[in-house]
Amino acid sequence: MAIKDAAEEVEPLLVDHHSIDLRRAASNSTSQLALIGSSVSPIESLDFEIFENELLSQDWRARGGRAQIYQYVLLKWTLCFLVGLFSGCVGFFNNIAIENIAGVKFVVTSNMMLANKYMWAFGVFAVSNLMLMMFAAVITAYIAPAAAGSGIPEVKAYLNGIDAPEIFSFRTLVVKIVGCIAAVSSSLHVGKAGPMLHTTACIASLLAHTGSHKYGLTWRWLRYFKNDRDRRDLVTCGAGAGIAAAFRAPIGGVLFVLESLSSRWRSALLWRAFFTTAVVAVVLRAFIDFCRSGKCGLFGKGGLIMFDVTADNVSYHLSDIPPVIILGVIGGILGSFYNFLLDKVLQIYTIIHEKNRAFKLLLAICGSIFTSCCLFGLPWLASCRPCPGGISEACPSIGRSGNFKKFQCAPDHYNDLASLFFNTNDDTVRNLYSAGTENAFNKYSILLFFVTSYFLGILSYGLVAPSGLFMPVILTGATYGRLIGMLMGSKSTLDHGLFAVLGSASLLSGSMRMTVSVCVILLELTNNLLLLPLVMLVVLISKTVADCFNLGIYEMLLRLKGFPFLQGHAEPYMRQLTVSDVVTGPLRVLNCVEKVGNIVHILETTGHNGFPVIGEPPFSQMQVLYGLILRSHLLVLLRKKYFLSSRFSARTNVFDQFSGDDFAKCVSDRHDGIGDIVLTAEEMEMFIDLHPFTNTSPYTVVETMSLAKAHMLFREVSLRHLLVIPKFPSSAPVVGILTRHDFMPQHVTNLHPFWMRGRNKLFQFRNSTVINMFRGLWL
Amino acid sequence: MAIKDAAEEVEPLLVDHHSIDLRRAASNSTSQLALIGSSVSPIESLDFEIFENELLSQDWRARGGRAQIYQYVLLKWTLCFLVGLFSGCVGFFNNIAIENIAGVKFVVTSNMMLANKYMWAFGVFAVSNLMLMMFAAVITAYIAPAAAGSGIPEVKAYLNGIDAPEIFSFRTLVVKIVGCIAAVSSSLHVGKAGPMLHTTACIASLLAHTGSHKYGLTWRWLRYFKNDRDRRDLVTCGAGAGIAAAFRAPIGGVLFVLESLSSRWRSALLWRAFFTTAVVAVVLRAFIDFCRSGKCGLFGKGGLIMFDVTADNVSYHLSDIPPVIILGVIGGILGSFYNFLLDKVLQIYTIIHEKNRAFKLLLAICGSIFTSCCLFGLPWLASCRPCPGGISEACPSIGRSGNFKKFQCAPDHYNDLASLFFNTNDDTVRNLYSAGTENAFNKYSILLFFVTSYFLGILSYGLVAPSGLFMPVILTGATYGRLIGMLMGSKSTLDHGLFAVLGSASLLSGSMRMTVSVCVILLELTNNLLLLPLVMLVVLISKTVADCFNLGIYEMLLRLKGFPFLQGHAEPYMRQLTVSDVVTGPLRVLNCVEKVGNIVHILETTGHNGFPVIGEPPFSQMQVLYGLILRSHLLVLLRKKYFLSSRFSARTNVFDQFSGDDFAKCVSDRHDGIGDIVLTAEEMEMFIDLHPFTNTSPYTVVETMSLAKAHMLFREVSLRHLLVIPKFPSSAPVVGILTRHDFMPQHVTNLHPFWMRGRNKLFQFRNSTVINMFRGLWL
Repeated sequence: MAIKDAAEEVEPLLVDHHSIDLRRAASNSTSQLALIGSSVSPIESLDFEIFENELLSQDWRARGGRAQIYQYVLLKWTLCFLVGLFSGCVGFFNNIAIENIAGVKFVVTSNMMLANKYMWAFGVFAVSNLMLMMFAAVITAYIAPAAAGSGIPEVKAYLNGIDAPEIFSFRTLVVKIVGCIAAVSSSLHVGKAGPMLHTTACIASLLAHTGSHKYGLTWRWLRYFKNDRDRRDLVTCGAGAGIAAAFRAPIGGVLFVLESLSSRWRSALLWRAFFTTAVVAVVLRAFIDFCRSGKCGLFGKGGLIMFDVTADNVSYHLSDIPPVIILGVIGGILGSFYNFLLDKVLQIYTIIHEKNRAFKLLLAICGSIFTSCCLFGLPWLASCRPCPGGISEACPSIGRSGNFKKFQCAPDHYNDLASLFFNTNDDTVRNLYSAGTENAFNKYSILLFFVTSYFLGILSYGLVAPSGLFMPVILTGATYGRLIGMLMGSKSTLDHGLFAVLGSASLLSGSMRMTVSVCVILLELTNNLLLLPLVMLVVLISKTVADCFNLGIYEMLLRLKGFPFLQGHAEPYMRQLTVSDVVTGPLRVLNCVEKVGNIVHILETTGHNGFPVIGEPPFSQMQVLYGLILRSHLLVLLRKKYFLSSRFSARTNVFDQFSGDDFAKCVSDRHDGIGDIVLTAEEMEMFIDLHPFTNTSPYTVVETMSLAKAHMLFREVSLRHLLVIPKFPSSAPVVGILTRHDFMPQHVTNLHPFWMRGRNKLFQFRNSTVINMFRGLWL
Repeated sequence: MAIKDAAEEVEPLLVDHHSIDLRRAASNSTSQLALIGSSVSPIESLDFEIFENELLSQDWRARGGRAQIYQYVLLKWTLCFLVGLFSGCVGFFNNIAIENIAGVKFVVTSNMMLANKYMWAFGVFAVSNLMLMMFAAVITAYIAPAAAGSGIPEVKAYLNGIDAPEIFSFRTLVVKIVGCIAAVSSSLHVGKAGPMLHTTACIASLLAHTGSHKYGLTWRWLRYFKNDRDRRDLVTCGAGAGIAAAFRAPIGGVLFVLESLSSRWRSALLWRAFFTTAVVAVVLRAFIDFCRSGKCGLFGKGGLIMFDVTADNVSYHLSDIPPVIILGVIGGILGSFYNFLLDKVLQIYTIIHEKNRAFKLLLAICGSIFTSCCLFGLPWLASCRPCPGGISEACPSIGRSGNFKKFQCAPDHYNDLASLFFNTNDDTVRNLYSAGTENAFNKYSILLFFVTSYFLGILSYGLVAPSGLFMPVILTGATYGRLIGMLMGSKSTLDHGLFAVLGSASLLSGSMRMTVSVCVILLELTNNLLLLPLVMLVVLISKTVADCFNLGIYEMLLRLKGFPFLQGHAEPYMRQLTVSDVVTGPLRVLNCVEKVGNIVHILETTGHNGFPVIGEPPFSQMQVLYGLILRSHLLVLLRKKYFLSSRFSARTNVFDQFSGDDFAKCVSDRHDGIGDIVLTAEEMEMFIDLHPFTNTSPYTVVETMSLAKAHMLFREVSLRHLLVIPKFPSSAPVVGILTRHDFMPQHVTNLHPFWMRGRNKLFQFRNSTVINMFRGLWL
């Protein structure tokens, strides 16, 4: 039976936002081991277990009063309210800034084109884009690298219990907001929904951390919030608020978090998340009312994207099902191919990014210039079309957004490609979703825009700037849907605007593999519930098809970043392994009364976060498992020098010296190491009585339990450590510790390569095409 | 340290649908103990744990092939599809039957009134109502008592792991469908949504049970479905389909299950539930298309309730917030008072129902006659109003539903109360929700209808017939909302139809304490997403206010029925108790090789469902915990007479004699007792080797663990038994077993009455008004 230690530092390290080196490292065990003892701060797991030791029990008893509960409840809801309020404000601010910056840019360029100064127009367009992009790239690369990308995978990992460094810092928050505004305004083909979600999750985390000493904001009430569980709940609410603010979709926001982000859910949380998004909705509503009076610059009433597909008589019949099925199938294929390409591109980008920061910036510059060329150059390929008669809209629309961009055309003509390319993404989507515009676009224009948008989206995401994936996917999907609608021609009676909505749904679900939340978000965006059955159908088909080929985009990004993400289900072969098959040695244990020197040595030589404590004679009759102690608690003890002169000294009253607050987890504590603590040689010979600080009731499993069953316990109760006890009494009362790394398929297959390949047929076709689908379906 | 046995038969027994005797029994421990050994079949818990013994491991290995997984996946999705299909069909059938039966009744009566035969009209109306009601009551009382009421609490209990007898039987299904049609058609003030949910959950459960021998439908593929986990998942999907079918609200259905019913949730389930409700939506859509051609009798296009509040310009501003807040506060108070009254009325009804079945029927007769009198008599109190000019609708509307009922009025006049009372509930709600009808109703008419509807709803629910609560609450709420709108007068610019929607939301959330699902269902019903922020606001306020006073309606019904429902959170005082404080003796254990006579004796004298198996010398060095064996498995062994002649006989190859299927749980097995098994005296002296049948890795906790922490494990992993092991090695390797009953607050407070009262301040104010709210809020 293998004895093992909690090899927690055998963790992929987060070198860079798009780092994949750890994935490579994880794929062979030698390089993985080489990471042990690395000085880079490791990704920490979070503690969601109820930690029971004498000290905290005492603390809990002391605070069991009525007033404390009121405080706690009030605080919880106040924080949710604040998260909602701030999210609403940030959402509004982001939108208004982007609309105004991008708007001014487009107005200036359009005016130059009206005066036939085409080269000047291009120059201004390209240079302003480049400047904005450079600004975003520089602050991201130099101030907060963690702010790059959408941030959704990081939030998802956090909710799973993985605490990547700097993800929720104040620096990251500021860079994310400013960088996102700059990047999106620079006409880069990226969205603002993902960064918005990260921003609001960040706000939630910072609010929950206000008790931290680091920011000098300690407030007595907040001490009840110094635990990972409440923080996770608040971050969950914050993430929902982000989607609500980005899409003005409060229900969709809650569902997105529930479906795609959250690893654990309670119905009480549903209510609180819902409250948060309701606050966001009300705040946004109030701001929009305010902007109706025209005080918000170029920001109009449609400023927060909201596409009214209000063709009152959206009607469809069973005969419309076949085109919708085709749409779903192709959407699924396109979506999974999108993920495939994105994966490859990100791997290439990572190699470039790893060289040094200048390369990152160079890549961003290339991206920006290429985008500007596409957006300005491609519309010239389209021929000018005469304005249709009998429409209420101005044609060509000058100095404002609209379906009919003049671009280089003669009066009374418009350029249909320009109204797609030379516009903000929001306006383009609005144009594509608009009903009754069957003839506004040329088939080849739509095709060209679709291809460009598809690849620009893939190329733009990995650049070093805050960038979301939602908007490019919605946009590309809408174009694809309209294209299918055009190709169907008279075979379908559905409106092309409706086709565009369905196309967005199919690509979203094909790429991100969301189902319910896509439906709800699209319904909230388009304000048309009658679409629901069609959207549902297309979403289900698209996801099923896409699942045949590869993983969803977030899972893919999580793998790329090397997070030890704990899946909701165990792999089938885990039912045939016992926990003793995966625990590997050596196990480090502490005695109930342990020598300071030993503790320091163990803390210095390992990176483990938890150690079993063994009760020995004379404290108990024989060797028994007394409990589990955390590294962070040992560090507090060493720092406070709570030492005994000999093993049998009477201990002083511990409750006078410590309060529960001393052990409450703070941000600032996280990165304090053993190195900071200075101890004399004399102190090293002293002892610590660990009794009052040990969690006396850790969850345990018997060594013969199958890995799948232990996985279920580990995941459902959100554990960080799981002790393995022997089946039959033996000399050692504990066999090993399981941490989340022991459940990683990568780790298990490294330990049992032969067994896996030979015995288990399931495993053989794990990577085959078909099983991918079934893994999704059979849960 | 108390040694205890799994006192599983100390369970409230389900004597009757509305039985409260067990609640009384549970409140003092002597009468509770008196129930032990009772012959009434007990409520069983369900097994959601992965059960690991040699036999099943072997079985799992054998079926690990690719084909089996395909079968399993295909089966899972096919069953979901079938549940959706059947649910859609049943939903449509129910609606069409109710519309036609009730429609014919109203048309006949109205025609008589047109001919001035008022007494005849009342006679026909009252007698037809009475006949329908009697039919519903008789089949419910004599054929399937479990079909009475809404069935939602039973489904909720099932998803929590409580398997009440006959809840999902075929008999119950048929009675529920037929009885619901009869009861709702009889103009009783009950809804059809709750019964619909029970019906579809029943369909799901029966489909998952098709493998059962009882119905002779065993099919080899279905054996993978013979476990409680897959059944629960399918029932979850079925419940969502019910709400989807009742309200044509597929997203609302999924959310309702997620928020109000389900105790456990996985994102994979979200997808499947969503698929099921999508199928329902498509099926309903197809049927409605079919009915457009007029082939469905009186069933029109609005037949499935769907209230279009399509005032295109629903606009509201911050100034509309105060009336909405008032609406929410009063709605919360009314909702909680509704629950309070319903609780009292149900208790009285229970006392009456317990006498005998004739009393049940008598009560139903009284209810029906009283309702008929109200519906026919009260409209006479209203004065006739002249028809408004310039409306497109016919006035008075004759021979069809409409806002303007002629009733007893002169031509060109209408009776506004009659259009509320003398109508199907669906039509009344449609009238109340209609926009731009500020002057159609008199203030006092609305008030009278509100009061009548409020109390009729409370009085009607407990009658012995399938009856839902949704519709009465929606209806009463809509009236209340309109009343508030009228009282506001010119102070608010909101439409009265909108006020009605908000009123429904406030009463629904005040009574049922749903949040997100109410919002979504109302949005799907009214097809107007712009209402969202207002609905959210009103729902949140209303729930918060109502939580101050009492429990939600489903929790109240669960308590009334005496189900041992396991809450999602532990009570605060549970943190201060250890598991050893609640385990009570005596513990019955089995040896690994046990004498048949002992097993029979234990099975006869206890009702426990699980027994610890102890490994003894010579099978192990010392007494160790070998595992846990289930009563049902022991019964299989006894029935198959898998006996050894002596304790040390070599065991035959068990895998030849048994397959996993023998132990798969079947409906028919559930109620087979030990009494059916005939054993000779010789056989009683033989032995059974329990090794291959024992679950060798049951979840265990150490006796010093707090009850709250054990509760979390028990609930999150959905356990049925939790073994308690000693902290320090002692003679007994197991201290006790925890079952869900040990976590019931009732049980804990019975064991520790003094401790609770004296030491724990938290507990003292558990029942106070304010803490009720906070218990809801602080989770």
